[in-house]
Amino acid sequence: MTVKKLSQIGELALLAKIKKQFGKKSESVLCGIGDDASVLKPLNKFLLLTTDMMVEGVHFDLTFTTPYQLGFKLVSVNVSDIYAMGGQPSHVLLNIAVQKERDLAFIDLLFKGIQDAMKRYQTVLIGGDLSAAPKDMSLSATLIGYADKYLLRSGANIGDKIYVTGNLGDSACGLQLLKRIKNPISLSRKTGSRNNMPSALRTKLTRLGLSWNVVEPLVRRHLMPEARNPAKFVQQATSMIDISDGLLVDLTRLCKESRTGVKIYEEEIPVSSGMKEAAMHMGLSPLALALAGGEDYELLFTAPSGKKVNAICIGDIVQSKMVTVNRKGKEKTFSARGYQHFQVRSERK
Amino acid sequence: MTVKKLSQIGELALLAKIKKQFGKKSESVLCGIGDDASVLKPLNKFLLLTTDMMVEGVHFDLTFTTPYQLGFKLVSVNVSDIYAMGGQPSHVLLNIAVQKERDLAFIDLLFKGIQDAMKRYQTVLIGGDLSAAPKDMSLSATLIGYADKYLLRSGANIGDKIYVTGNLGDSACGLQLLKRIKNPISLSRKTGSRNNMPSALRTKLTRLGLSWNVVEPLVRRHLMPEARNPAKFVQQATSMIDISDGLLVDLTRLCKESRTGVKIYEEEIPVSSGMKEAAMHMGLSPLALALAGGEDYELLFTAPSGKKVNAICIGDIVQSKMVTVNRKGKEKTFSARGYQHFQVRSERK
Repeated sequence: MTVKKLSQIGELALLAKIKKQFGKKSESVLCGIGDDASVLKPLNKFLLLTTDMMVEGVHFDLTFTTPYQLGFKLVSVNVSDIYAMGGQPSHVLLNIAVQKERDLAFIDLLFKGIQDAMKRYQTVLIGGDLSAAPKDMSLSATLIGYADKYLLRSGANIGDKIYVTGNLGDSACGLQLLKRIKNPISLSRKTGSRNNMPSALRTKLTRLGLSWNVVEPLVRRHLMPEARNPAKFVQQATSMIDISDGLLVDLTRLCKESRTGVKIYEEEIPVSSGMKEAAMHMGLSPLALALAGGEDYELLFTAPSGKKVNAICIGDIVQSKMVTVNRKGKEKTFSARGYQHFQVRSERK
Repeated sequence: MTVKKLSQIGELALLAKIKKQFGKKSESVLCGIGDDASVLKPLNKFLLLTTDMMVEGVHFDLTFTTPYQLGFKLVSVNVSDIYAMGGQPSHVLLNIAVQKERDLAFIDLLFKGIQDAMKRYQTVLIGGDLSAAPKDMSLSATLIGYADKYLLRSGANIGDKIYVTGNLGDSACGLQLLKRIKNPISLSRKTGSRNNMPSALRTKLTRLGLSWNVVEPLVRRHLMPEARNPAKFVQQATSMIDISDGLLVDLTRLCKESRTGVKIYEEEIPVSSGMKEAAMHMGLSPLALALAGGEDYELLFTAPSGKKVNAICIGDIVQSKMVTVNRKGKEKTFSARGYQHFQVRSERK
């Protein structure tokens, strides 16, 4: 069996392949992939733009990430930023620098992951750039979206309630599991399926003392996060951010921009029972993972206290103090401890 | 003297610095740098989007490129794609992955180059992403622009004349000089100035037998290309592309999309006298550099034969053959020989 490398087909052939795979017609796109720039007829709404990078060795580790998952996540993290403004994603541009020694199968899976995520979020690929990478892969996506009403980080008011859209800490706990498993795990499209679990993985899970039912949702949340659509509460919300660097860090950002404080009730922070079990097994604190783990890609938003909101309330916007409240009612001041890419010591890795 | 490294200040401090440097108010920007996504009120025109990457070791070589020039070029090559659609650039998103061991001075110069180019093209920075890079730097910009009328590659008609906006081959010749000079050359803002020419460079130029007046415009065209604004002929034009991979390659692209052929008169191709002199000195063919050198960032466009057009006519769009015509009137069929990033043997490097 001959394994075809990227260097054997060249950039133009790869581009033709992508054009075929993604080149479906869309009436919003007057000119898509293949010219110097793409041309859209913009909607008469607020136009949202965001871009996020994923660099090998910084944002992902191919010893436990499949190319499919990488592609899926690249789209999700960018869509999450559009959602976090209260918008809906519409179009995608991609930049992909990849080693020319890569197998074509790797590239196919990467683009399959991108395509599946784009389908999920109903977005259309309109352009991008391909390049060789001498050493590490580097990927970025630019997402375009629209909003009738947009939500800034700065809109929170004293007296607002603060909400999250789902369990926190699953992704960070999943990452800790993956660092112990040290294998790529292919995940089926349906959550909880055991398809294709290699026997080496079975052995490792047994050794960890954890079942696949516990591990699967956690590693899935890390490897293939799905961004949360804010459509059902965007009208009620006053401010919003997505949780990428951990609840406390992103909460601090929101409060700083809004010039408010916040009071968070530890008991109200949603954590999954699987995360608790896995964290305990690894000697980690479920609360710490939920507060500071990061890469949750849940939405964190505020809404006036009288409104009925379809999300999980975890605290109140207050005048100035930044505190967590434990189950005994004891307040503790917190400060942001971020994941800063250039610092020698980082929280997230 | 202590040299400050990026790792000593961290991502957030760098972000704050950039926000201060670029965060000037613009009425088109409802939300710029610093939230999850940026928010624009789109104009009621065609919206143009493009993105291009520059990867260390593939697109640039820091042994003869200054960080200022790198930043300037990153913006120019992306603006060139907006111009090539007949549009005007308006907003910029940046992705920058850089080694954390870099001096702050390097980053400052990089962003100064970006800023100066952005001023030149009257664009506003609205967002982006910063990351550490384990090994090689990788940069990308996404450019947003608008057009009242947009020009595709596919619009050329048989009988149209074909035009370019300036001299070809200067950039490729400049690159050949830089590979021999093997030093970064700081270029002043004004073309032709001798400011800051280090004596080591003077010696190398003497050894090459070339004067600074000859060398400066050539290396400048490679290191700090300025994109060509199509405003003065966009109404007459029928199709357009920018010359990034060499005249013959980009001409082939335009003709393929337009389903036409082309006849190019070698005598009409504009080349600078300095390029001829430098190419001869290096034993290179000026014509080959002009036809296939690449990175010219001149515009290549077509217009009906009766129209008065403010550019240099180099040939005619014909039914099917792809030929160059030499001074004796002899036709020679050409084929595209592209710069493909993933192929082992490439033309451009």
